[in-house]
Amino acid sequence: MKLVTRLINKFKVNNSILLEEPSAPLMSTSIPGPKAKELLCTQSTFSQDFRTIKFIVDLSKSIGNYAVDVDGNIILDTYCHIASLPLGYNHPDMIYNIQSGEYQKYLAQRQSADLPDIHWPRMVRDILLPIAPKNLNEVIVNCGCGSNSNEEAYKIAFSYYMKNKRGGAQPSEKEIELAMNNQGEQLTILSFASAFHGRNLASQSTTHSKPINKIGQPRLDWPKAPFPEIKHPYHLNESHNIREEKRCLAEVEKVFKAAKNPIAGVIIEPILAEGGDKSASPNFYIGVQEIAHKYGALFIVDEVQTGGGPTGRFWGHEHWGGRADPDIVTFAKKLQVSGLFYKQHLRPGRAYALYNSTRGDPVRLLNLRKIREVMDNDNLLRQTERTGMLLKNSLSALSQKYPISNIRGYGTFLAYDFISPEWANAFVKEMLELGVAVGTCGTHSIRVRPSLIFKPKHAEIYLDRAEFAINQILSKGFKLAKV
Amino acid sequence: MKLVTRLINKFKVNNSILLEEPSAPLMSTSIPGPKAKELLCTQSTFSQDFRTIKFIVDLSKSIGNYAVDVDGNIILDTYCHIASLPLGYNHPDMIYNIQSGEYQKYLAQRQSADLPDIHWPRMVRDILLPIAPKNLNEVIVNCGCGSNSNEEAYKIAFSYYMKNKRGGAQPSEKEIELAMNNQGEQLTILSFASAFHGRNLASQSTTHSKPINKIGQPRLDWPKAPFPEIKHPYHLNESHNIREEKRCLAEVEKVFKAAKNPIAGVIIEPILAEGGDKSASPNFYIGVQEIAHKYGALFIVDEVQTGGGPTGRFWGHEHWGGRADPDIVTFAKKLQVSGLFYKQHLRPGRAYALYNSTRGDPVRLLNLRKIREVMDNDNLLRQTERTGMLLKNSLSALSQKYPISNIRGYGTFLAYDFISPEWANAFVKEMLELGVAVGTCGTHSIRVRPSLIFKPKHAEIYLDRAEFAINQILSKGFKLAKV
Repeated sequence: MKLVTRLINKFKVNNSILLEEPSAPLMSTSIPGPKAKELLCTQSTFSQDFRTIKFIVDLSKSIGNYAVDVDGNIILDTYCHIASLPLGYNHPDMIYNIQSGEYQKYLAQRQSADLPDIHWPRMVRDILLPIAPKNLNEVIVNCGCGSNSNEEAYKIAFSYYMKNKRGGAQPSEKEIELAMNNQGEQLTILSFASAFHGRNLASQSTTHSKPINKIGQPRLDWPKAPFPEIKHPYHLNESHNIREEKRCLAEVEKVFKAAKNPIAGVIIEPILAEGGDKSASPNFYIGVQEIAHKYGALFIVDEVQTGGGPTGRFWGHEHWGGRADPDIVTFAKKLQVSGLFYKQHLRPGRAYALYNSTRGDPVRLLNLRKIREVMDNDNLLRQTERTGMLLKNSLSALSQKYPISNIRGYGTFLAYDFISPEWANAFVKEMLELGVAVGTCGTHSIRVRPSLIFKPKHAEIYLDRAEFAINQILSKGFKLAKV
Repeated sequence: MKLVTRLINKFKVNNSILLEEPSAPLMSTSIPGPKAKELLCTQSTFSQDFRTIKFIVDLSKSIGNYAVDVDGNIILDTYCHIASLPLGYNHPDMIYNIQSGEYQKYLAQRQSADLPDIHWPRMVRDILLPIAPKNLNEVIVNCGCGSNSNEEAYKIAFSYYMKNKRGGAQPSEKEIELAMNNQGEQLTILSFASAFHGRNLASQSTTHSKPINKIGQPRLDWPKAPFPEIKHPYHLNESHNIREEKRCLAEVEKVFKAAKNPIAGVIIEPILAEGGDKSASPNFYIGVQEIAHKYGALFIVDEVQTGGGPTGRFWGHEHWGGRADPDIVTFAKKLQVSGLFYKQHLRPGRAYALYNSTRGDPVRLLNLRKIREVMDNDNLLRQTERTGMLLKNSLSALSQKYPISNIRGYGTFLAYDFISPEWANAFVKEMLELGVAVGTCGTHSIRVRPSLIFKPKHAEIYLDRAEFAINQILSKGFKLAKV
């Protein structure tokens, strides 16, 4: 406890903010510590469902890559609010930006989509258009969350399909009557096994990662296709991987041919994050894109987790090269605002076909503007690429000695497997005790999701503690290999 | 133009903020004026779909009940960002609150639901629980928008139905397998004709207000029941109204008896706002509640528009008296945060069954805390009731001379009908030219949706201009009665 107090005293101003990043994690209690337990206990008898809480952060004290928790523990954060922290905690440029007074009028009242502020059109143009993926020069922002952004993409796909089916004509009286009675054409969206596209009632029909996201809920009878089970490193398992990708592409085509209801769109993540950080070669994604377009379906890329730089490019699909041609790209998380970019000809024929009162929150765009500026000024994409390379190589070296394998990903958006879910869970627990917040994905994978200011020095700490954690687990009787 | 400039000069500080409310609207251009046209024109070639824009507000210059638009027009706002403005523009207490610095850390980073800030549990308890409807002591916040809040309510209803069906047991292997393949029990939600519960893919299956909200989209085959066509004033048409409510209650029961799939919940608005401000007597709502409970369905009250005071009570369903017993109440708009209150026994058995990364935005709760304080200190519920009474009585007087009828509602949450959609649209246009922003609902109704600081003096201006507008329309050849 003393050490922590000293460290906090060293860095604090007005009893609250650390002036600069600590040099390493520093734990004084287990997690949850006594203060956390007290807080959770008081709350459990009423109000919110707090069972999902990992730890309780003291946002005033957290800085850079380090979260400080309610018990004063200093934790290197590679979980980052489910991959949603672009510039770490309390980035000085963000704070300075917020203090400018520009936020005030947008906080004092929330504009609706039909009564925008005078600066809104220019904000959309100057903040959003510069990050638009190639050919996607139309945008919808503030969908509320990533799930909603995806559902908006589905709505665009459905509207567009029906518009084409009608040959551009207006809906008939009959179609309107059927619509008003919850009847009519049953269009679908094709998604992939292990995918996660949200938990809304429709988006969960495209989510296949875990039963908890779907159980007990009615679903739309929408199709899914298998996603390639790739072995990493890719080039060392090339013949298996290419065969597997071809097999899955053939399955995608089979689903289109056998579809009992029309498929208006295909949705895919550049890395199937929640489902276990699965990805395939660019050839596979381009193959899916080609099949979608061949059958008149839109190709929707869900960049809710991959968008905003963690793969070392601003968009994850940039790794697919020049042939990538998504019709819609959805985003949220690291951009600190949710929404979607789409091709202009997909705009529905009539106003209000896509609409929500809460579209357009300038507060979130002011944040995004500053995030982008810092990314440019500090060359964070390049740094993320470099740090990721170091992490990946060092994890590979560790995999020679320890029960980890299948190291994969781009930039610092990485993952690796333990030999069992028990190993993965023990690792997460041990790492948190050592002051590193780490998350799982799939059944037995560890996901690496630091913010964009994660540097080689932070990676070194992560790697040191990871090796220590694995040895701790081994010393508790866990085996090096499956028995 | 000169008058406006003088008025703005009189009230401005630093070329931007009016210090106090103007005494009346003041128009210098038509809407859209030249600056608005220029802005809209520049934007139409790219980026957002701006066709739904009513006018462009200059949030820096707007104050109290008055929006100042980009061309300097001063507009009395009774539309208020689709009923989402609780305290008018730039309320001094809100501004003061924002300047306190408390918002800073919550703006600099967005917490995820599983890594909340140290102050979050207390904020939930101290800001949300005091406004919880009777018996609903569990809450979910930051659903993104009202539609999402409703979908979350449906998910609770479905989970609860399945839990009961299993006798409280965990889902079987078979149920999990079906869920993962988008198959399994098709549960439904019952809603009412003319209802509006959102535009997400599932919530639009409970929306029946206008074809634009549904056309071209696949829908869930969920049932709907007729909503009583009430004649106002209620007591002058009592025998018709009571007969009509009984007829509709019988229809609700018929839908339950004939349901081919189980109905897990019934959703209803205290006033069916978007669908034309339809409402019925408390007896009808209590009747629906009793039928829902009799058949084991949850009774869900959608207070997205009515919640937060506009009816003169904090919740619209408080007008139903002591027998009101909703299982879930959803909210958004005037509360400046979206979410739902529900009975604690409805909490799903397992964590993550209801979840979204973005649940829990302290920025919105800090706003809500201040809104509630101002409401209490300034006795805004009482004022809203009083102002509403004045408006309602005066509109009744106008209806003796002019083609308006069916004046209805509670507090300032009022509506009235013109004899045709053409009349209603002409009125909205004329009122905006006279400096009063007014909205429609249903096909030929005018909705009154001022903020909670709308006082009798504002109502007087509204009424004066309304009479003037009607006379203007008559002078253009519109008829007093349908021909």
